[in-house]
Amino acid sequence: MAAVPGLETVHWLEVYGASGSVPVVRAGVCEGGAVGALVLARPAARNAWDGAMWAQWDAAVAALRALDSVRVVVLCAEGPAFTGGLDLGYLAATLGRHTAGGSDPARARARFLREIAAMQAAYSALEAAPWPVIAAVHGACVGAGVDLVTACDLRYATRDAYFCVKEVDVGITADLGTLQRLPAIVGQGAAADMALTARRVSGEEAAALGLVSRCFAGRAEMMEAVLGVARDIAAKSPLAVWGTKRTLLRARDGGSGVADGLDRVALHNAAFLLGADIRETVAARSERRPPRFSKL
Amino acid sequence: MAAVPGLETVHWLEVYGASGSVPVVRAGVCEGGAVGALVLARPAARNAWDGAMWAQWDAAVAALRALDSVRVVVLCAEGPAFTGGLDLGYLAATLGRHTAGGSDPARARARFLREIAAMQAAYSALEAAPWPVIAAVHGACVGAGVDLVTACDLRYATRDAYFCVKEVDVGITADLGTLQRLPAIVGQGAAADMALTARRVSGEEAAALGLVSRCFAGRAEMMEAVLGVARDIAAKSPLAVWGTKRTLLRARDGGSGVADGLDRVALHNAAFLLGADIRETVAARSERRPPRFSKL
Amino acid sequence: MAAVPGLETVHWLEVYGASGSVPVVRAGVCEGGAVGALVLARPAARNAWDGAMWAQWDAAVAALRALDSVRVVVLCAEGPAFTGGLDLGYLAATLGRHTAGGSDPARARARFLREIAAMQAAYSALEAAPWPVIAAVHGACVGAGVDLVTACDLRYATRDAYFCVKEVDVGITADLGTLQRLPAIVGQGAAADMALTARRVSGEEAAALGLVSRCFAGRAEMMEAVLGVARDIAAKSPLAVWGTKRTLLRARDGGSGVADGLDRVALHNAAFLLGADIRETVAARSERRPPRFSKL
Amino acid sequence: MAAVPGLETVHWLEVYGASGSVPVVRAGVCEGGAVGALVLARPAARNAWDGAMWAQWDAAVAALRALDSVRVVVLCAEGPAFTGGLDLGYLAATLGRHTAGGSDPARARARFLREIAAMQAAYSALEAAPWPVIAAVHGACVGAGVDLVTACDLRYATRDAYFCVKEVDVGITADLGTLQRLPAIVGQGAAADMALTARRVSGEEAAALGLVSRCFAGRAEMMEAVLGVARDIAAKSPLAVWGTKRTLLRARDGGSGVADGLDRVALHNAAFLLGADIRETVAARSERRPPRFSKL
Amino acid sequence: MAAVPGLETVHWLEVYGASGSVPVVRAGVCEGGAVGALVLARPAARNAWDGAMWAQWDAAVAALRALDSVRVVVLCAEGPAFTGGLDLGYLAATLGRHTAGGSDPARARARFLREIAAMQAAYSALEAAPWPVIAAVHGACVGAGVDLVTACDLRYATRDAYFCVKEVDVGITADLGTLQRLPAIVGQGAAADMALTARRVSGEEAAALGLVSRCFAGRAEMMEAVLGVARDIAAKSPLAVWGTKRTLLRARDGGSGVADGLDRVALHNAAFLLGADIRETVAARSERRPPRFSKL
Amino acid sequence: MAAVPGLETVHWLEVYGASGSVPVVRAGVCEGGAVGALVLARPAARNAWDGAMWAQWDAAVAALRALDSVRVVVLCAEGPAFTGGLDLGYLAATLGRHTAGGSDPARARARFLREIAAMQAAYSALEAAPWPVIAAVHGACVGAGVDLVTACDLRYATRDAYFCVKEVDVGITADLGTLQRLPAIVGQGAAADMALTARRVSGEEAAALGLVSRCFAGRAEMMEAVLGVARDIAAKSPLAVWGTKRTLLRARDGGSGVADGLDRVALHNAAFLLGADIRETVAARSERRPPRFSKL
Repeated sequence: MAAVPGLETVHWLEVYGASGSVPVVRAGVCEGGAVGALVLARPAARNAWDGAMWAQWDAAVAALRALDSVRVVVLCAEGPAFTGGLDLGYLAATLGRHTAGGSDPARARARFLREIAAMQAAYSALEAAPWPVIAAVHGACVGAGVDLVTACDLRYATRDAYFCVKEVDVGITADLGTLQRLPAIVGQGAAADMALTARRVSGEEAAALGLVSRCFAGRAEMMEAVLGVARDIAAKSPLAVWGTKRTLLRARDGGSGVADGLDRVALHNAAFLLGADIRETVAARSERRPPRFSKL
Repeated sequence: MAAVPGLETVHWLEVYGASGSVPVVRAGVCEGGAVGALVLARPAARNAWDGAMWAQWDAAVAALRALDSVRVVVLCAEGPAFTGGLDLGYLAATLGRHTAGGSDPARARARFLREIAAMQAAYSALEAAPWPVIAAVHGACVGAGVDLVTACDLRYATRDAYFCVKEVDVGITADLGTLQRLPAIVGQGAAADMALTARRVSGEEAAALGLVSRCFAGRAEMMEAVLGVARDIAAKSPLAVWGTKRTLLRARDGGSGVADGLDRVALHNAAFLLGADIRETVAARSERRPPRFSKL
Repeated sequence: MAAVPGLETVHWLEVYGASGSVPVVRAGVCEGGAVGALVLARPAARNAWDGAMWAQWDAAVAALRALDSVRVVVLCAEGPAFTGGLDLGYLAATLGRHTAGGSDPARARARFLREIAAMQAAYSALEAAPWPVIAAVHGACVGAGVDLVTACDLRYATRDAYFCVKEVDVGITADLGTLQRLPAIVGQGAAADMALTARRVSGEEAAALGLVSRCFAGRAEMMEAVLGVARDIAAKSPLAVWGTKRTLLRARDGGSGVADGLDRVALHNAAFLLGADIRETVAARSERRPPRFSKL
Repeated sequence: MAAVPGLETVHWLEVYGASGSVPVVRAGVCEGGAVGALVLARPAARNAWDGAMWAQWDAAVAALRALDSVRVVVLCAEGPAFTGGLDLGYLAATLGRHTAGGSDPARARARFLREIAAMQAAYSALEAAPWPVIAAVHGACVGAGVDLVTACDLRYATRDAYFCVKEVDVGITADLGTLQRLPAIVGQGAAADMALTARRVSGEEAAALGLVSRCFAGRAEMMEAVLGVARDIAAKSPLAVWGTKRTLLRARDGGSGVADGLDRVALHNAAFLLGADIRETVAARSERRPPRFSKL
Repeated sequence: MAAVPGLETVHWLEVYGASGSVPVVRAGVCEGGAVGALVLARPAARNAWDGAMWAQWDAAVAALRALDSVRVVVLCAEGPAFTGGLDLGYLAATLGRHTAGGSDPARARARFLREIAAMQAAYSALEAAPWPVIAAVHGACVGAGVDLVTACDLRYATRDAYFCVKEVDVGITADLGTLQRLPAIVGQGAAADMALTARRVSGEEAAALGLVSRCFAGRAEMMEAVLGVARDIAAKSPLAVWGTKRTLLRARDGGSGVADGLDRVALHNAAFLLGADIRETVAARSERRPPRFSKL
Repeated sequence: MAAVPGLETVHWLEVYGASGSVPVVRAGVCEGGAVGALVLARPAARNAWDGAMWAQWDAAVAALRALDSVRVVVLCAEGPAFTGGLDLGYLAATLGRHTAGGSDPARARARFLREIAAMQAAYSALEAAPWPVIAAVHGACVGAGVDLVTACDLRYATRDAYFCVKEVDVGITADLGTLQRLPAIVGQGAAADMALTARRVSGEEAAALGLVSRCFAGRAEMMEAVLGVARDIAAKSPLAVWGTKRTLLRARDGGSGVADGLDRVALHNAAFLLGADIRETVAARSERRPPRFSKL
């Protein structure tokens, strides 16, 4: 079943929609449960996001959050493309539902607002999780795909990958996070360039822009490296990894500058530094062995 | 008259100062009115900003805003330099006016504050406009020139262009936007480097820093490419282009982080997504023709 | 004594701890007092931060602030490494003091919070100073070293330098400024990459990321160039340099966006532009001589 | 069953914990489903919040949110007190669980943080709901009770009610919302007075401080008036009521001031004003009949 | 003509719409030009805001701004009511224009957004003016009237005045400033009460809530007192009055707390304190005469 | 010596300026060191702030911070007035120093900015202290006096007290905190009224506005009550008192709203709740004795 190289040993979880119907998002774990995998698995449709994908995505993320063994999650995709973005049939049906005659347009828009908010929440859930998420992108990463990967903590890509903020080309203002998160990653100018021209940014340019940390020649190399990064992070103190992720995101969103962020991280460490992990690290170093950390 | 390559077919507008006196800022449209042009046209003085330029600039921007056909604007310059920044004679006269003896220094400074605010507003007007502005920079872009181009949405440059935050070298803290907008474009470190050392950043380095999206070998190539980008953007849904520009700027300025920005863009699309442009896009695709959008 | 190339002519100040005990942080001035030097001087311990370094650091910064001749400060280090970060023995003693049995854990943590805040303040003091600080990094710059250099205004490195946000590897959430300041410098993605993986970033990669302004082949070249930059800045209007530094930092920390920042810098210049430096600049230019500015 | 005067006609919902075990939070609807009721129903323990109450609270709020007929909710309590705050036995058990020997104190605190966050979310859910919540307070409203009512939109009290931010008296920094929300209601000085002295504020003083909108002689009068207010609100446009609640909360939390809030509410009305409710209002007025609005 | 008691000596200005057509907003000055007056002058329609009022309002405010003699402005109204709010015919026409069939609903809403923004700007112009505005309210102050008076600096009312945030009763989320500005004046709870219930708040209750500074028995007493306050303010240093108004508004809107506000006001006074007014004040005191200040 | 009723048993500290020269600010402790006192002690000059007072104030606050026994501080004044504000002679000398001919006006203003910042810091130090400060105000509290008391946590006054934001009457924009802190205490309207009219607000009106918590008939009654409040607070958990003060101030200054504040206080309690004080409270209650807390 594992169409993604490197995920052969993953233990797949049963998630909503995965039994009885065809799964289009997979969730699983490997490395003794420490490394999670989220796989977009609707390759015949270039992993386009339809209603089933949205539903299974929420379930898959929830399933991984429920496993307290997980310390890091890899997000990747089956088939030739990472994702083509929103499924156009799904989009058309959504629009149709909200613009049908007879109904009050204001109520239709209020319902539509709630649907947008639900989709935003589906991706923002990655930021709320206590573990980092690493996106491994090959092939097309279009529209909602860019929204999705900018909500991840780390991003890697293959040379044949391309990123495209496609929304402006279908008459849409991107609303699932790209316009909020991308500027902090690549700068305001590059984000405007991508979002206003909808041009394709290759894996190599993405690396130069800082959109991905590294660009690989092929998918197998990328997955091997990404899983290596994941294993490394999984071996670190989960307290420190969670604290680092949380603090970086709070710093990005904190409206009151560095002084405010410094106060918050000081509180954080007043709460969480005086614990077992730092002692275990010191002990392991003196005993020349890898440290062992318990789950969070 | 069109000293800028590629602008031969522009229809120049009559703007304040353009009749009777010599125009030093030109505004015009091409592509059936969809692409606007703003041209710094005081080449003999290296397009240095004197009182006439400030006055004509406001009038030129207003003239383009009054034309509802415009969907994107290209900002460029006549002569060998994009702009040398503030005209030193104008600066000296301004300073003299505000430091003349006899007058209350506090009132002089209050008047000076209003003059600064007016100049800031002149450049910020580009951000308030409903269309993106693309700066095409060749030669020197110094002092106020950097303030100006950082208020644009997209920037391109030639290899012979250079950017210089010159203010510190004339004893000034830059106050027309560079210190606020440049860090979001090139990062805090590069912005500090440029602003504290006043060193020249070439077109190629500007591309590497993300200050411009691309660097071209010559001015003609740049103008051809920039006008191509402009035509592409002009062919897109003006609703989506306006929404994308607006959302990017609100995300930059919103003090409350990504969650706040997501809520705002969800409201935006609750208001503006359910319209003609997305339907036209879908129809055009199925009919294999370019979409046609009405003005905003 | 001067183990750092290029600092031979520095006049070293007597600072707290420098007499009687062995100095581990040195402060001095050269260029007639206009260029300050802060030197990490505990090379035998790779300039690791122990109690003596923290104490002497505060004293050294205070000593330079007390000299009103200083216009710019260079921060560098003796020995083979810039700094290995927190001294592990010091860290262990600190932890031991706060987790000793018998004491109320909440009070222990409140004391610990105060210690963190004091260390944060030690580095933030560089941002509060009226002169820019230029970090010149060679060899290892690990853990607290990254906190320190991100609080500087400008950064340069040698090719053999490496930067490592090491905290996550010792079970710690970095709390001395890296997680707040680094993303503004290199972008959110690169910052997350460095902080979550603790990987080493070389001097060359640091230049590509914007973490340093330039990477040099060797230490002597770097110091020569850095001192040249320092001399240049020292020759500029101290009013303009201070205003530029201050405005850049306020813009970074201001929660209310560009409009708010523009208002603040307009106030700044209403107060400080109408002074001697801009007149001196104009006069010097017309007389073809370098301008001379009095101290701030 | 209805121990609260005025709630005799409420149709009680089956919520989690309500069947099989004794319900300690009740949820119901009256007025044809338009007015919801949330009732603290553990009167024998002065409605102190133990584990069962927290669990049933979440279920009760969710049950009301699931009913799209609801337009406004009244929050009140059975027995002689509104609520005595956190159940001390529950608090002791919680503390014991987190301070038990053997466990890593940092992990214990991370778990504790999650518990606090869950309790915060339980009360914040009232702000996220699309309908206003009206608190009707009699007798003691202590500790968590103040956290709870400050998360409501409107508050009323009887003369015998008293409000007490009790936490400081049990060695706690209040962490369920009082310190964040109360200052916006009564001002910074009065909030500090209540929170630092833990003194009792009577229903009458609460009205003078603006903590409640009105103070009533007795419970029956209060419930009659509160249900009248609820019926009035339920008869208004649900679109306008939701928009007003939402906009007031966004204005409170928006970090960027009035201009930012004006932009957001303009977007809100661009989306939601052009609908049926305003037309229905105008029609009803001209026909001299009450308007009829469909559900949101 | 002067239907407002106390304005008999006002010199009325010719403003847009005032000649040829019937003036519905009047602007004038008295006290040698130091005290301005803005008068809602459509008493037959209870000063309801129709297109003419919006147009003349902008012109009237601009006319007063153009007179640099003005130091304070009194806002009051002719006839039995301060204002009944938006004119319902104007509202209906506006809605009709934006919901007419045939047009793209998204473009209609974009135009509607611009109209809302223009109305917001009309009231916000009072905050941008360099002089304080004092509202003197008698009779009904409904809907847009509350938006208007909350944009003033000071408010007074008669006992027969009442304030009513009426929007929710016509199916509207108030969008001209009330929901943003009222909570800072009366607190979050009282603002929610007024906005969600649309109940009438009498002049006396308004005084108790802090919505007005004082409540008067009748209109003549109020106008006499208000004009006295205006004369007092007009006799003060215009620099100090402008600085105080500006600083209070920046403090309200500044997202970064007191420290940020303190820095800004320190900059303000670095610019504007060292002037003639403070010297004149000291001189006047020693000479036991009233100080005389020149215009701003 | 103790000219303030109720302070007879205070043990006065030797602070800077208190020996050799005449003390004008006194600091002391009573109640076994738990209650601190800060006394303005220049009654012959109505406690006007001259250079000696500023210097001694800093020393007095520092002396109390150095005593870790202190849990709460009472601020009061000797003589017939709380304080008349800035000493006019001191103000004149300061102005003279900064406007003297010959010096560069920009540098003079930069120095002046530093002096303002130092005075702001002197009052803000009360907010940074770990104990609450209670102001007890009798007689005049004018100008800088209002800046001072708004930086306190609690305020009480006598009936004969009056508060006057006098700055506007001497041509000054108040810059020591009133314009930033007062609106959060009394609302934006009342703050504007006080600051723009400079009118006197009596003790009784101050209580009605929320500027003081309570108004007393006389000074002796006030001091007795204030010392009672101080003793009560001193008997509470210092951890909880500090946490409450700190959280209230962070909530006021946090630019990102309630959700951000909730996260911060959750971190705070993750760090500090699981300690001795809550256990001591529970134990003391079951043993029916007052709790005993150790110092922070």
